[in-house]
Amino acid sequence: MSRIGIFDSGVGGLTVQRAILAALPSADTVYLGDTARVPYGTKSAETVTQYSLRNARVLARREIDLLVVACNTASAVALPALRAELPVPVLGVVEPGARVAAKASRTGRIGVIGTQGTVASGAYQAAILRERPGAEVVARACPLFVPLAEEGWTDPDDEVVRGVVRRYLDPLRDAAIDTLVLGCTHYPLLREAIARALPEVRLVDSADAIAEEVRARIPAVAGRSGVHRFLVTDVPERFLGVAGRFLGRTVESAEHVDV
Amino acid sequence: MSRIGIFDSGVGGLTVQRAILAALPSADTVYLGDTARVPYGTKSAETVTQYSLRNARVLARREIDLLVVACNTASAVALPALRAELPVPVLGVVEPGARVAAKASRTGRIGVIGTQGTVASGAYQAAILRERPGAEVVARACPLFVPLAEEGWTDPDDEVVRGVVRRYLDPLRDAAIDTLVLGCTHYPLLREAIARALPEVRLVDSADAIAEEVRARIPAVAGRSGVHRFLVTDVPERFLGVAGRFLGRTVESAEHVDV
Repeated sequence: MSRIGIFDSGVGGLTVQRAILAALPSADTVYLGDTARVPYGTKSAETVTQYSLRNARVLARREIDLLVVACNTASAVALPALRAELPVPVLGVVEPGARVAAKASRTGRIGVIGTQGTVASGAYQAAILRERPGAEVVARACPLFVPLAEEGWTDPDDEVVRGVVRRYLDPLRDAAIDTLVLGCTHYPLLREAIARALPEVRLVDSADAIAEEVRARIPAVAGRSGVHRFLVTDVPERFLGVAGRFLGRTVESAEHVDV
Repeated sequence: MSRIGIFDSGVGGLTVQRAILAALPSADTVYLGDTARVPYGTKSAETVTQYSLRNARVLARREIDLLVVACNTASAVALPALRAELPVPVLGVVEPGARVAAKASRTGRIGVIGTQGTVASGAYQAAILRERPGAEVVARACPLFVPLAEEGWTDPDDEVVRGVVRRYLDPLRDAAIDTLVLGCTHYPLLREAIARALPEVRLVDSADAIAEEVRARIPAVAGRSGVHRFLVTDVPERFLGVAGRFLGRTVESAEHVDV
């Protein structure tokens, strides 16, 4: 049976795991959330690469067949280092999200929102241009979206949510994009509020895009339900308290690991 | 000449350093910002204590005479471990802030705002009750305040700022507090917006409170200006970009250290 390793800076990557499980319910998974060092999105490429390698080494010892980098920031800056070191295929969320967005856009005017690290890396912008030369990409960091999602302030009728979303997205609306990549694992929790602010824009969730790639590589087994393990670098309690909201099912236990 | 070591989870502790320099301009300082692991406020007491010990060891090697824990979360959970290990006096921001608040309040109804870690530790609540038995303490975590301050969204007329501040502070207003401790290094940047939401309430900044304690322990030298060094655990660029807003003077260079 195939076992998929997934790591993220914290709890947000569970939205990626959720999409993978919906596409491929028979696969086993080991998820590592680096909750002692979260977030990655405000940190340098050097530091994020160092943390990503440590996470990947822990997962490699769990006999995984494929590594999924669920964190957009790590996908944007650490893939070459991870691919150079790991003995298994490594998939990030940036390439699949960029590919879907490049195909979905009619006008070629594509927006990308993510962390400061993801936007500063230029990784989505470059990947979209590789898929669709001549596209115009408008990228914007939205640092308040992660704490909003973690507070559970996601109601599109909430005046604070509306205010923050409009402050970040009005420039993208003015740039007349027709497609927007949700380039951070937390942003799907704000999907409805984002859609309200950009009603004519197609939203691309990188989690769905990578789930398709995983399904294409891992054989499904009819009638089997996968076994799922969770590892965290801080104590498990807080992770367990919020994991359900991100994964869409209860997480009953998680193991503390040092990386 | 006396040298003061100061550590914080990141850049916020520069508001504490700023208060210390205003009170004691002749002292030398070494500031360590753990920018690779920031924030501490969402992490467990175990992890914050481990990081605090590592920071303190780096500073101890720089021949400091006194260690100031500028981070409220670290002050709330790690002081006993730090005092057990360090060969120099260790001061946190919680005790001084609690003492000033306990004295300032007329009614004994005192509010405390801080990170999730600081509020959950109960450290401010306990310290206020030690100073003033019978006080009623209402504590509230305000997770959005740190990213608001880091985005520079602090204008009290800004509708997003007003909305977030009111959401967190309306319950404190309803609890009829007359004194509020700003129990996180970032919160002084939101002071005006907080004052607008709680116009009758006295605001206590723990940075000012600890600066008085430091001045009482370190001899001042007339006419001397201290020498200030800055250490960071992530690459220095982002720290240097925002440090001025927190310190109130330009920071020209910072050294990268591994802890």
